[in-house]
Amino acid sequence: MDTVGILGGGQLARMLALAAAPLGLRVLVMDTVADACAGQCAPLLVGDYRDEAALAEFAAKAGVATFDFENVPAASAQWLARRIPVYPGPGALAVAQDRLAEKTLFRELGIPVPDFVDVPTREALEAAVARIGTPCILKTRRLGYDGKGQFRIRSTADVGAAWAALGAQAAEVGLILEAFVPFERELSVVAVRGRDGDFRTWPLTENWHVDGVLSASLAPARCEPAIEAQAHAHARALAERLDYTGVFALELFCRDGVLLANELAPRVHNSGHWTIEGAETSQFENHLRAVLGLPLGATRMIGHACMLNWIGAMPDPAPVLREPGGHWHDYGKQARDGRKVGHATLRADTPQALQAALERVGTALERQAQVAPVIERLAG
Amino acid sequence: MDTVGILGGGQLARMLALAAAPLGLRVLVMDTVADACAGQCAPLLVGDYRDEAALAEFAAKAGVATFDFENVPAASAQWLARRIPVYPGPGALAVAQDRLAEKTLFRELGIPVPDFVDVPTREALEAAVARIGTPCILKTRRLGYDGKGQFRIRSTADVGAAWAALGAQAAEVGLILEAFVPFERELSVVAVRGRDGDFRTWPLTENWHVDGVLSASLAPARCEPAIEAQAHAHARALAERLDYTGVFALELFCRDGVLLANELAPRVHNSGHWTIEGAETSQFENHLRAVLGLPLGATRMIGHACMLNWIGAMPDPAPVLREPGGHWHDYGKQARDGRKVGHATLRADTPQALQAALERVGTALERQAQVAPVIERLAG
Repeated sequence: MDTVGILGGGQLARMLALAAAPLGLRVLVMDTVADACAGQCAPLLVGDYRDEAALAEFAAKAGVATFDFENVPAASAQWLARRIPVYPGPGALAVAQDRLAEKTLFRELGIPVPDFVDVPTREALEAAVARIGTPCILKTRRLGYDGKGQFRIRSTADVGAAWAALGAQAAEVGLILEAFVPFERELSVVAVRGRDGDFRTWPLTENWHVDGVLSASLAPARCEPAIEAQAHAHARALAERLDYTGVFALELFCRDGVLLANELAPRVHNSGHWTIEGAETSQFENHLRAVLGLPLGATRMIGHACMLNWIGAMPDPAPVLREPGGHWHDYGKQARDGRKVGHATLRADTPQALQAALERVGTALERQAQVAPVIERLAG
Repeated sequence: MDTVGILGGGQLARMLALAAAPLGLRVLVMDTVADACAGQCAPLLVGDYRDEAALAEFAAKAGVATFDFENVPAASAQWLARRIPVYPGPGALAVAQDRLAEKTLFRELGIPVPDFVDVPTREALEAAVARIGTPCILKTRRLGYDGKGQFRIRSTADVGAAWAALGAQAAEVGLILEAFVPFERELSVVAVRGRDGDFRTWPLTENWHVDGVLSASLAPARCEPAIEAQAHAHARALAERLDYTGVFALELFCRDGVLLANELAPRVHNSGHWTIEGAETSQFENHLRAVLGLPLGATRMIGHACMLNWIGAMPDPAPVLREPGGHWHDYGKQARDGRKVGHATLRADTPQALQAALERVGTALERQAQVAPVIERLAG
């Protein structure tokens, strides 16, 4: 029996572990903290990802390794990859960890991307702002997550403040200036590629963020078939160039009917959680199938699905559990401001039924603001 | 956070544990052996069900208790029920543990049942055979499971051999003589009842057994709506009489369009495994919702489903994983003759697509005999 090692023990590892059991797989999770929520569902090895003794124990017990987050130190991923198969490979991880490498790759592959410039120095920042124009966003090249390590530049007067906030990181993790795109929609394509190159995508998903954190996802996204085809082609081009194995998400902006690539997440993704109930095969199961070299499962939808993220604390589950297509996901975490602690997925056979369910749940939980944009999209 | 204690650590407890995690529940499994397969998915307490110290530890850690098999000693269930809530209650368990009590209840509720007679002595056996006629089956009243503790009497000449085989158990566990029913179909209704009395059934399932062990299940069963309505009414009558909480299965024979009750299984049931992918809410999740007093989930089907049991050893997973609606369930057990080690569920939108999938899988795994009766039913 194979043991799948997962670096990172959050909710993604937890849901991977739950998908692993029916496949007859054992899971070993490694995390830096002893109360990592995946440890409730699988054996947990507590250690620092840079500690070679801990990594050696992990490698000795796991037949193959994968990740539940993209910021695993590159050296650790490479160290592991010399001992056991690691999917996705350290090369793909390295690209996804570096906004500059990622966006350069998008551009090379002909995937439209908001304008961007490498910013090694304060002088370079001034030149970059002059070239890209305002508004624009200064970001760290590495280790950015959910809006952290970003500074929005509204006018040239903000350049000094931006450098004061992030300039010290230029030497260590690098900085990149990106044009601000006043997009109409945020979309994501979740895709999977097998060891043998078999490539599949789930239907395009529309996403809504609040304070930089995903709040709701709707699948399938309401958009032109041509847009969906374009998104899938971009995802395939990326996967093939990176010789990618496993699930990944490509986050996109849509503006005037044109897709712009925002970010590659080299892992199962929050915007794919609806696949647990809303697709024939979930992103978690297909990631494992890919990593193990098993045949990939069908990615077709079953009806229409909306995922609502629970941030900070879990709400009352009853209104969701009472829904005919209501599914609950409590990650077993302590409540904490800003923390993703769970989600719900509402599934229905028709957009109308999904809309009605969202209206009931939004009202019962007094979360009308969270469901409103999804309802508006379904009604439109 | 609630902890659900499960007595018995087989595949049913394992699948309950996997359904418990998304609800934010912790699980504690108790089993007599340290390698119980549910222990791969939840903490495992090893102990004898009659050991009060072990039961006390179990009761101290669990907020509520349930079972993954019906032969938990009645005294242990009662001991536990004085300390923590136990669902289903010891009363329902006691009825299901005793074929005579069970069949007497069926008869009281007006649920047709094959003729049966209590057999306390050899003389009573002779009188019973004379009354019921041959063929008939002598069974132990308690602890029968999957065809064990049964002796088929083909003619009165077999009475001596039947008594020689089972007579010694008359004093300890009791014996019952049942008419042999040459049924056309075996059906089961899987149902759930909440603490508040909310009652729901999944669509009727047709089952095929080989050597007394379930081989395949098809849902929805192909039968007259009146038959399905009758089966659901029988299940509801039982649940209400027993003030039942949780999932149970009522096994039925169908002969000449009439349903005869065979057995009540007071737990999640092998013939309901298809609900994991084939219904909006699985039997495992709804059992937990019932036990916890949460709202029950919808039991409607999503398409058509066939479950194939894997007995003895797991086959090659690839042919199932390659199917668009193929789902794999490996219980993580060592191979052993006659042991249920896993199952597969094939799901499809139409009976035709399901039939085609069964033909492909049957051929690829050289299990044509296992899929043949299901294909015949779908084609008919």
